[in-house]
Amino acid sequence: MTKPLTPDGWFIENHEDIYAQGFAVTKHLHHEKTPFQVLDIYDTAEHGRLMVLDGFVMLTDAHEFPYHEMLVHVPLLVHPEPKRVLVIGGGDGGCIRAMLRHPVVEKATMCEIDEAVTRASQTYFPYLTEWIDTDSRGEARFADGIAYIKENPGTFDVIVVDSTDPIGPAKGLFNRSFYNDVKQALKPGGIVAVQGESYWYFKDEVVEMLQELGSVFDHMQYYTTQVPCYPGTVWGLGIASMTDYDFTCPHDPKRAETIAETSSYYTPDIHRTAFVHPAFARKIIGGLLK
Amino acid sequence: MTKPLTPDGWFIENHEDIYAQGFAVTKHLHHEKTPFQVLDIYDTAEHGRLMVLDGFVMLTDAHEFPYHEMLVHVPLLVHPEPKRVLVIGGGDGGCIRAMLRHPVVEKATMCEIDEAVTRASQTYFPYLTEWIDTDSRGEARFADGIAYIKENPGTFDVIVVDSTDPIGPAKGLFNRSFYNDVKQALKPGGIVAVQGESYWYFKDEVVEMLQELGSVFDHMQYYTTQVPCYPGTVWGLGIASMTDYDFTCPHDPKRAETIAETSSYYTPDIHRTAFVHPAFARKIIGGLLK
Repeated sequence: MTKPLTPDGWFIENHEDIYAQGFAVTKHLHHEKTPFQVLDIYDTAEHGRLMVLDGFVMLTDAHEFPYHEMLVHVPLLVHPEPKRVLVIGGGDGGCIRAMLRHPVVEKATMCEIDEAVTRASQTYFPYLTEWIDTDSRGEARFADGIAYIKENPGTFDVIVVDSTDPIGPAKGLFNRSFYNDVKQALKPGGIVAVQGESYWYFKDEVVEMLQELGSVFDHMQYYTTQVPCYPGTVWGLGIASMTDYDFTCPHDPKRAETIAETSSYYTPDIHRTAFVHPAFARKIIGGLLK
Repeated sequence: MTKPLTPDGWFIENHEDIYAQGFAVTKHLHHEKTPFQVLDIYDTAEHGRLMVLDGFVMLTDAHEFPYHEMLVHVPLLVHPEPKRVLVIGGGDGGCIRAMLRHPVVEKATMCEIDEAVTRASQTYFPYLTEWIDTDSRGEARFADGIAYIKENPGTFDVIVVDSTDPIGPAKGLFNRSFYNDVKQALKPGGIVAVQGESYWYFKDEVVEMLQELGSVFDHMQYYTTQVPCYPGTVWGLGIASMTDYDFTCPHDPKRAETIAETSSYYTPDIHRTAFVHPAFARKIIGGLLK
């Protein structure tokens, strides 16, 4: 039970020599040094395929759905009519796939800085990326998301920031300068949702993200999903707007029910309860929400 | 980032060579082969002290509270007047500590088969066990819980089963024969709550537990808490009774508010939302609840 884990047969994610997760690996499928990061893909014993960037788990077949469904469906269902939507990052394709499940969406653009992530996803996670070939509403752009939103003011109903952690290439996606550009790129009534770390293991990052996001938007809440392949599982997502929405409630219950029918995680009840936090977490973030 | 983890400096919990967790260890404080199991206690880099039984994490300083609060406060707050309460297992003392926060409790008995667990907890987790010396309402018995409940029919308002996993010494605490004895040991209106595994990594165990519990009690629900030191974090708890309670709702909102004031996880809102499950989990367990 306490036998050593060696790199043979295990992918180990080590968080600052404090906490680690190990995934039993059956095959190392892909290793690539892209212009931005190091990309690895493994077959695992029980999580299906595993994508790793710079040594950190990005997604697994087993646990992609709770992340993508909650990051996408919540803002798209709170917005009354999300026709034009954008993902910054999200090169694995899972966010656009979730967006295209909404019939109201007319155009969904992914702006990913690292094309290698998407190409690898097309090979190893084809169900996440098949929309590139099959749905003309989906657009894959390979460019700097920060520049792209600057160039497109007043364009989007919903922007989803599906970034890696606030280190490495995604560092610029967690500050008020970027969030201000996001605000400018939204149409009136627009909503942004962002990958927001975990209040269990990354408390300081959560607080900093909410401080920055809340300094730009008039209304902001924090909600969670469950991603067991991330440390602490209970993963936070920020949602913000200049419009005073009830973020905890879908705009149109029928539209939400239809999305729930194709979902493995999302239900209207889960939508509502994802905004309820344990006492200790409320103490950390409660004063920042507005 | 993918450097090997060796046993030096890490406690590794390995789940059937499929998934592993590692906790950076600063000191191995205690190692003991008890008559029932192997007991280890470590100081860790960030989780405080860590108790391990037969190679599996039982508790950490950092994450004991969401487990104990939810396993105890939910049944005690649903019950209209839980004067006489019992914990089967729970030798670390955390459940009785939580029970004694309820002024309505007149006597709280812990029946733990392995006295060594409690003695070690008194040394290394003194805050969990101080009630043994300071609160005359608390009683620590070291005996076989199965025998103890057989000997005490119609005695308890609430019984909490705080067991290890359904292997090893706790195997007998997950079947209908035991649950039937629990039913007999409850007073009219009595409630039982049980450690109920995780729908992420132990789906079969969850289903089997609910099948067995539901074959004995007329009313049963499943709720969750968050325990990041357990694999999958989102940890299930079963609750059952012969009485048709609304388990999702405290009997007396004022009593619940008072408990929330001394809690780090429990709030009345968390109580209610803990019974809401993602779509995939509803598919697994929904048909068993009643």
